Amino acid sequence: MNKIKVGIIGATGYAGVELIRILLGHPNVELAAISSVSFEGKTISEVYPNLTEICEMVLGNEDEVIEKSDLIFASLPHGLCEALALKADQKGKKFIDLGADFRLAKEEDYEEWYGLHYNEKELHGKSCYCIPELHRDRVKEGISIIGNPGCYPTSIALGLAPLLKSGMVDLNSIIIDSKSGVTGAGRGLTQTSHYPECNEAFSPYKVAAHRHTPEIEQTASELSGQDVKVTFVPHLLPLNRGIISTIYVTLNTQVQDNAVYYLYQKFYEKEKFVRVLKPGQTANLKNVKYSNYCDISLHLDKRTNRVIIVSAIDNMVKGAAGQAIQNMNLLYHLPEDTGLNLVPPAF
Amino acid sequence: MNKIKVGIIGATGYAGVELIRILLGHPNVELAAISSVSFEGKTISEVYPNLTEICEMVLGNEDEVIEKSDLIFASLPHGLCEALALKADQKGKKFIDLGADFRLAKEEDYEEWYGLHYNEKELHGKSCYCIPELHRDRVKEGISIIGNPGCYPTSIALGLAPLLKSGMVDLNSIIIDSKSGVTGAGRGLTQTSHYPECNEAFSPYKVAAHRHTPEIEQTASELSGQDVKVTFVPHLLPLNRGIISTIYVTLNTQVQDNAVYYLYQKFYEKEKFVRVLKPGQTANLKNVKYSNYCDISLHLDKRTNRVIIVSAIDNMVKGAAGQAIQNMNLLYHLPEDTGLNLVPPAF
Amino acid sequence: MNKIKVGIIGATGYAGVELIRILLGHPNVELAAISSVSFEGKTISEVYPNLTEICEMVLGNEDEVIEKSDLIFASLPHGLCEALALKADQKGKKFIDLGADFRLAKEEDYEEWYGLHYNEKELHGKSCYCIPELHRDRVKEGISIIGNPGCYPTSIALGLAPLLKSGMVDLNSIIIDSKSGVTGAGRGLTQTSHYPECNEAFSPYKVAAHRHTPEIEQTASELSGQDVKVTFVPHLLPLNRGIISTIYVTLNTQVQDNAVYYLYQKFYEKEKFVRVLKPGQTANLKNVKYSNYCDISLHLDKRTNRVIIVSAIDNMVKGAAGQAIQNMNLLYHLPEDTGLNLVPPAF
Amino acid sequence: MNKIKVGIIGATGYAGVELIRILLGHPNVELAAISSVSFEGKTISEVYPNLTEICEMVLGNEDEVIEKSDLIFASLPHGLCEALALKADQKGKKFIDLGADFRLAKEEDYEEWYGLHYNEKELHGKSCYCIPELHRDRVKEGISIIGNPGCYPTSIALGLAPLLKSGMVDLNSIIIDSKSGVTGAGRGLTQTSHYPECNEAFSPYKVAAHRHTPEIEQTASELSGQDVKVTFVPHLLPLNRGIISTIYVTLNTQVQDNAVYYLYQKFYEKEKFVRVLKPGQTANLKNVKYSNYCDISLHLDKRTNRVIIVSAIDNMVKGAAGQAIQNMNLLYHLPEDTGLNLVPPAF
Repeated sequence: MNKIKVGIIGATGYAGVELIRILLGHPNVELAAISSVSFEGKTISEVYPNLTEICEMVLGNEDEVIEKSDLIFASLPHGLCEALALKADQKGKKFIDLGADFRLAKEEDYEEWYGLHYNEKELHGKSCYCIPELHRDRVKEGISIIGNPGCYPTSIALGLAPLLKSGMVDLNSIIIDSKSGVTGAGRGLTQTSHYPECNEAFSPYKVAAHRHTPEIEQTASELSGQDVKVTFVPHLLPLNRGIISTIYVTLNTQVQDNAVYYLYQKFYEKEKFVRVLKPGQTANLKNVKYSNYCDISLHLDKRTNRVIIVSAIDNMVKGAAGQAIQNMNLLYHLPEDTGLNLVPPAF
Repeated sequence: MNKIKVGIIGATGYAGVELIRILLGHPNVELAAISSVSFEGKTISEVYPNLTEICEMVLGNEDEVIEKSDLIFASLPHGLCEALALKADQKGKKFIDLGADFRLAKEEDYEEWYGLHYNEKELHGKSCYCIPELHRDRVKEGISIIGNPGCYPTSIALGLAPLLKSGMVDLNSIIIDSKSGVTGAGRGLTQTSHYPECNEAFSPYKVAAHRHTPEIEQTASELSGQDVKVTFVPHLLPLNRGIISTIYVTLNTQVQDNAVYYLYQKFYEKEKFVRVLKPGQTANLKNVKYSNYCDISLHLDKRTNRVIIVSAIDNMVKGAAGQAIQNMNLLYHLPEDTGLNLVPPAF
Repeated sequence: MNKIKVGIIGATGYAGVELIRILLGHPNVELAAISSVSFEGKTISEVYPNLTEICEMVLGNEDEVIEKSDLIFASLPHGLCEALALKADQKGKKFIDLGADFRLAKEEDYEEWYGLHYNEKELHGKSCYCIPELHRDRVKEGISIIGNPGCYPTSIALGLAPLLKSGMVDLNSIIIDSKSGVTGAGRGLTQTSHYPECNEAFSPYKVAAHRHTPEIEQTASELSGQDVKVTFVPHLLPLNRGIISTIYVTLNTQVQDNAVYYLYQKFYEKEKFVRVLKPGQTANLKNVKYSNYCDISLHLDKRTNRVIIVSAIDNMVKGAAGQAIQNMNLLYHLPEDTGLNLVPPAF
Repeated sequence: MNKIKVGIIGATGYAGVELIRILLGHPNVELAAISSVSFEGKTISEVYPNLTEICEMVLGNEDEVIEKSDLIFASLPHGLCEALALKADQKGKKFIDLGADFRLAKEEDYEEWYGLHYNEKELHGKSCYCIPELHRDRVKEGISIIGNPGCYPTSIALGLAPLLKSGMVDLNSIIIDSKSGVTGAGRGLTQTSHYPECNEAFSPYKVAAHRHTPEIEQTASELSGQDVKVTFVPHLLPLNRGIISTIYVTLNTQVQDNAVYYLYQKFYEKEKFVRVLKPGQTANLKNVKYSNYCDISLHLDKRTNRVIIVSAIDNMVKGAAGQAIQNMNLLYHLPEDTGLNLVPPAF
């Protein structure tokens, strides 16, 4: 098969440069064009010297990327991708948005949480939101745009799915305490990501007010078949990569010791990228860094009949670039793990 | 007044050396003797070179410490302090145990969670468990032993107290997601505190099974007047000092926006060491490092009628040595903040 | 004695807030006024929540600070302090510049390295550059302005002084490899101090081209009595505080094993803030953090007849705010360590 | 071609598990057997959960590894590999020692620095020390054992080679100030690698007394054709991976601005794994992490006629496992970069 010509809009953002890192090892891909508003005209290796002599492509503009590519990854602030996806669509190109513009099925959610409208409603009919392990059936004839899931929602949806589908959870009980490394905040300079401010520091932020909340609730509601509200509190971890979501749910029934483990093991037994850890093990984000894995450990608190689900991903890979490539593989009917056999290092 | 002759058993542990740091600035204290099993005969500055030329005391044994001191701080693994407290008591000395041997009022809790018995039941009648802001009335005539609270329970009890006393909380709803720096694990070498294993890593541990659980529940039950069970999950943070507890409670009533803030503000208005942050602020452990403060921020999740309480302390100060000194001040009728006016640095 | 009314211009910079932290514990000081261009009208605790309920002063402007204070600390970018010092001088106030405007004795050095002129040459006659351990005699009648030394030069001058005075060093051989924590770069946001860029990263910067070079050479030349050129390479360490300078000098004579140690021990025997470590020990910046100490260890490389001097300070204390307060104590004939008895914590 | 059957002795050490990570992606290798004294009988994923479901091999003993493999990597403390290499040799297997037993050509160096003898002198005739970029010609007929270079010496030899061969260096002037991440100290628990002791800490260690010194001098002497002595001071960096060596040499001649850059560029122009950075750039270890690259930047200090060479590698890859695989490729006449196209991530 000919190689897929792939382009990246927003290539100098953290998700963009991670896409490059992974795509350079993808056997069916040719990196055709990359763009950056801030660094147009420079080579990517001038901005990211780790790529010196490995990728010396020049950063162009968005139109060039759309022109030269069969499939475009876009990693931009919300509100900017709808117009680009339309341009791509008009030229018959596929489009994967790593931002928020194609994630929420209900426009009112988008308006409430992002303060923006959908301008191209028809276009949304060609798009789907897709965590492959849960939604791969959505990527079928007629779908040319994918709303790539957010980092927190990915870790949470994969952590909750088997229990929510089982019907064993009190749907009013879901509390999610997530912790993310600083790359999650991106390349832009802010006081909170200034080294002396976040090193040896730790706190929550946007408590019960983070924009990923409606995306989390959308998937939880679909899985459970009911309207679900959750409490979601993200925290900023003093490390580069990775997310741990510690998820608390109350069961509406009594279960045997390892029943929840077996439920998850069966649910994910064919999924390469979800590793359900054995009873007694605990998920740690260090074990999935630089890889597309999601590690899940299950813990029953018998005293309160709660289950604690610990779900770990690399926010830059399964939470962004890796999952986007997994979605690209789906769009092109390639094995989902093509180019994604990234072994997480021990440290 | 004559200076109090103070001794430290277990002076080379992390809590021990933190006691030395703070006591060196206490105007009413003379450091009379220190001991260490591992380093007997060495000077403390040989073990902790930060103290070079500042404190050159020689480490002795436990008996010497008891002999030379009016008040003894002991920071040892659980099970070792009862016998030492007895010795001290027989000589009319006061005793503050930074470990777990005098924390739990019900012996069955101690047996269940620590697997040990109380050997000197009478002695426990002379002791009390004391977070000064909540229990200072307990330190009265006849009390010569104090069970100094654990680090997690301190952050949690101060975070929960006003709401639990208010009666507005669904007592079955309490979930506590705590995160602690690595000094909490002490000076002993373990794989989990080996630098390459915990740097750029993050995970929970002892999920819903940590020994601080009964201590947390003891205080919560006292405050609410009912038997309370909580779900408590500690996590290990890749930083040296500090604890954040993110506490989730469901209200059993509707409240105005800042009602919970005013409740806390009033509850703690005379407390120097508890800072209730203004609405809109969020507690961060960096702001209390190296100090005896507990910072608390309150966050109402209207969508689910939950309150999220964020409570931050320095695990080594308010969570150990600082609070122990605050308790010493209580025992000697000194102003509680004597020697504890430690300004937290900005970074 | 009445308390000295002290003001801080540039109070929201990192050196400024560190001055506040230390001055709050100084028995002879009243903090009279603070200013900030960026945050005028806010309280300092709004900018630095670590100071909540401890210091709630409102940030004013520079003129207010000069008006209300007997002594002004200024921590501003170079080029801004001469004019302020003049204003202060005209009102009979004392002035300590934590920046570079009063450090270099030769104006041509200032012009070459900073690209600026001295506008008030007369004013410089009332000023001196002062590392107290080396230059305290300079602070005499007629001196009302002090050029507070830079962080790197302080660690290096204290490390080199005894050997340079001894005449045993080949003056062409001096190589200084320094490493500083990120607070050294200040509060301003830059790509190089963005957390994901400097965490798990390390490199030199301004190789053999750092502006502290002429200040280092000025002191080295004074000490040796000859014109000295050095090679100076600073590096950025992924930690908050502290500087290590590893200094290489070739001896022009053969020495006994511990001769250099004895030389240093004698040179600094009356200096509280310089700790010459015993043979076999190695200076580590963690042992001086949050304190005004400079730790020095000496290492003889017999194979090459070089001495390696390792000098560690806290860049924010002995390298900035602490030394500035030490200089203030000199100006007011107070014991030099007044308010500076800061015990470095073990971790 | 058939896959090479490869075994690893000491597979649970840090270099061992890094070998596994890289070899899993090597197209010509079949991982045949792994061993560990401490964890025999366990699977590697029990010890390193990052490998869960990726590599579930059971750890055996050394004899099994030698038996089942064509080529054996051994990563063990010095003194243990000679006997194993002999066993392997007697069975006609190839052997790559990641330790020190086959690095030093002169037995007296080994005796002086390691306190051990060569027991199998004949065996050393079948071995060579090999940094491929400098010594690949040594791997010829009759060579079946390779002494894989140390991490510091690799960064230093590659940094010094062009200048030393050029004859432009005063050979008495070489000073090397190296800084390594904590993985360099290995998996064994020590006080210096206990998280709270090395986080927010920095210091040199084994000042001018590190065992890599004779290995550095051996290569420097070969390159320059004269007996060279260097001053070498390693430091411990608070990060996981990477080495920076800042190397100071005095030139014995005057040179044009970029002459040294051109010298290096030409010297390494055909070397994939050495990237000579453009003038104005500075090597940073973050840009080579997780990859086999060595980045070198050159800086001329005209004021002192010194060159400062900054050389950065990942201590676990180019400094251990990656270079060992590069040497394996040499032994099997494979392209040197086979299996080593590891793109360094941006963060």
